[in-house]
Amino acid sequence: MDGLQRIVGAEHIRLGVRVGDRMRQGTARALVRPRDAEQAAAVVAWCYAHDVPMVPVGGRTGFAGGAAPLRDDAVAISLERLDAVRALDPGLWRMEAEAGVTTATVARRARESGLLFPPDPGAPEESQLGGTIATNAGGPHAFKYGVTGDWVMGVEAVLAPGELVRFGGPVRKDVAGYDLRGLLCGSEGTLGLVTAAWLRLVPAPEAQLPVLAAYGSIAEGCAAIERVLAAGVVPAALEYLDAATLEACGAAFPGGALEGFVVLAEADGGEEEAARVRAELVEALSQDARAVHAPSERGAVRELWRWRAGVSYAVAAARGAKLSEDIAVPLDRLAEAIAETLAIGARHDLEACSWGHAGDGNLHSSFLFDPSDAAAAGRVDAAAHELFDLALRLGGTVTGEHGIGILKAGQLARQWAPAAVAAHRAVKAALDPKGLFNPGKKEP
Amino acid sequence: MDGLQRIVGAEHIRLGVRVGDRMRQGTARALVRPRDAEQAAAVVAWCYAHDVPMVPVGGRTGFAGGAAPLRDDAVAISLERLDAVRALDPGLWRMEAEAGVTTATVARRARESGLLFPPDPGAPEESQLGGTIATNAGGPHAFKYGVTGDWVMGVEAVLAPGELVRFGGPVRKDVAGYDLRGLLCGSEGTLGLVTAAWLRLVPAPEAQLPVLAAYGSIAEGCAAIERVLAAGVVPAALEYLDAATLEACGAAFPGGALEGFVVLAEADGGEEEAARVRAELVEALSQDARAVHAPSERGAVRELWRWRAGVSYAVAAARGAKLSEDIAVPLDRLAEAIAETLAIGARHDLEACSWGHAGDGNLHSSFLFDPSDAAAAGRVDAAAHELFDLALRLGGTVTGEHGIGILKAGQLARQWAPAAVAAHRAVKAALDPKGLFNPGKKEP
Repeated sequence: MDGLQRIVGAEHIRLGVRVGDRMRQGTARALVRPRDAEQAAAVVAWCYAHDVPMVPVGGRTGFAGGAAPLRDDAVAISLERLDAVRALDPGLWRMEAEAGVTTATVARRARESGLLFPPDPGAPEESQLGGTIATNAGGPHAFKYGVTGDWVMGVEAVLAPGELVRFGGPVRKDVAGYDLRGLLCGSEGTLGLVTAAWLRLVPAPEAQLPVLAAYGSIAEGCAAIERVLAAGVVPAALEYLDAATLEACGAAFPGGALEGFVVLAEADGGEEEAARVRAELVEALSQDARAVHAPSERGAVRELWRWRAGVSYAVAAARGAKLSEDIAVPLDRLAEAIAETLAIGARHDLEACSWGHAGDGNLHSSFLFDPSDAAAAGRVDAAAHELFDLALRLGGTVTGEHGIGILKAGQLARQWAPAAVAAHRAVKAALDPKGLFNPGKKEP
Repeated sequence: MDGLQRIVGAEHIRLGVRVGDRMRQGTARALVRPRDAEQAAAVVAWCYAHDVPMVPVGGRTGFAGGAAPLRDDAVAISLERLDAVRALDPGLWRMEAEAGVTTATVARRARESGLLFPPDPGAPEESQLGGTIATNAGGPHAFKYGVTGDWVMGVEAVLAPGELVRFGGPVRKDVAGYDLRGLLCGSEGTLGLVTAAWLRLVPAPEAQLPVLAAYGSIAEGCAAIERVLAAGVVPAALEYLDAATLEACGAAFPGGALEGFVVLAEADGGEEEAARVRAELVEALSQDARAVHAPSERGAVRELWRWRAGVSYAVAAARGAKLSEDIAVPLDRLAEAIAETLAIGARHDLEACSWGHAGDGNLHSSFLFDPSDAAAAGRVDAAAHELFDLALRLGGTVTGEHGIGILKAGQLARQWAPAAVAAHRAVKAALDPKGLFNPGKKEP
């Protein structure tokens, strides 16, 4: 480790450190915190030369164990000191930011200039740009605006054996090379280490007007979701929370206690456009609804989304722990996936619920358990496995936004044909011939 | 060739055929037209087993020579018979279409359902979905809506050594595997053969309202473009045509003869929203403008875009031939790139002009020449080379939307660092170990 210490300085290396994310931790031989991209490249070069596995660590808010070392000879690399917004050009709708900048800072800096960086995954105060790129993170507003990678025009990254490169830059269109920028987005640190990115921004919408409606059944709620699409308007977000989820978080809803199957859509844009879209959303959602709630006051809207951001925590608190898996299915199979989540829970004697990004067919299917109940862990694992089966049977994916990490290792080989998996492995071997970038993660 | 004939049938194979695109042609040993994806896979398997290079041929409307065989032992594969829209689900905003479906058919089928497939590269009646995916084609409306790949949720493709696979599908979010879907987009047929795609659609905007303004100089026009961005609205398109381009096509403008440096923006959305955005565009564009033209009648709008689609042809006709290169630069360098295009032309005794997708910093820098003037060809080549230098000096790319093909072979190595180029080559070798997919194209 002396070599690493010489690169980053003694005060930026700690030995024998537990690191990980919300789901898994492990012990790293060392945690190093390079100062800049050049130091990060030197760290990678040292590790590559000495056959030392590397685990990139971002805000540690992942749900798939991606930041947990699997071997105690691994070196964890945190880019938290790469926290500079290198450039912000409001008039050109773009930002260049380092990997350690938090999602909240990216959003705030954009907003202060009247602009929007649309990706809004959870935990904005902790999650870092590098991590959201590595998982290609989504969030509620991905329905209209797409996921993180859709806003990344270029990446600066360290590739094996320690080379700092750039793919793309402050240019909105580029087909000169293969889309290695896009390949790094969602690669979970297994192909290289992203150190910075050029981000695209857009003017912030003048108005954001959510509409929330409660239904008596999954079928009624999902029919409402399809009516929204048929209305010919594009909501910024199109979310759902099932009745069991509302049992955990409905009482805290800022507009008054909420129950049933809830659909949450949002209109945005200029004031008039947002009002027009909201009216269409209210019309589409009102049929069969037990209650419709459409706040327009800015504070109330903020409260609503703050409540929405807390749903995952409220569900976890209900029984002490939960396992949430983020399968995604074709939209026409959403109702089936929601109902089956409950059925799988029942078969394994587990309370289950789901909520998520309805318009994207992306569920957070969750199984609740008491962490002191040793037997429950096995039942939860079995339930998760059935859930993955369900996603594949419905023509979907085992992960819409969290990634494979270690929790879903091996699932891709069930989702993709053998030749597709072989291509996946070939790309990994091509870019990381020694297999030192986050080994054991995103394994097909 | 007997093996190929057995696969596709004698009537679907032709020997010794000239094929190519708008820029380059070559002779293929055979042109085969498989009936479906399975036959396409069998063709690839046969070629891979017999070490026969393959050249995928789409609508032959490319500008980089990507569809021209370089070796006379190559087999050209046309997917024109894969022309089925396999599924169209208007209520779910999605379509599954085969590679041989024309861009116009994709657009028409979407429009007939009240939906929009936004990518609008030129030559919609001839260009095919497979080709637009292979080049990740853009077009005027990419400014708001992005390029072809942004609308591709999944691809079906034949990989080496002849395996039919799928990456993604009718699912809007998926981070289970590396983004090999995205990797194929823009790969110009060098990594595999795309046979079909799952496309995302959106509700068609109610209104499309272009605003066109003419200025006395590049500086005034580019200042107007930056004012549009500063206005805080998102135009659907933000184009420009310089004064020299207008000399070739301005007289045919449907709103009356047009000259000077022209900026063309478009507002779209609901009727009221489009009107609001148009008003902002008119305000931003009016300062310094010699003329502002803002048609609202549907027929006039259609005429305007038909005229815009003919610009490339009008410029080519002015002297008999032209070479257009599609460099892209950071938006703050656009004015410099436009002026330098003219200066480069002057240095090589060539008439020059440019037009293109201003908001994306994407120029179609063109050098006009008389095809019977043998000496001109050398001057055009030298001018193109200087143009690539310019793009790189300004921090841009040698190709924003046409691809590398053979015309820009070798340019990527000047744009990317050696380690990035090595990664590009490693990916190619990983997915096409024999180097049989469109050899010689997209060479770094």
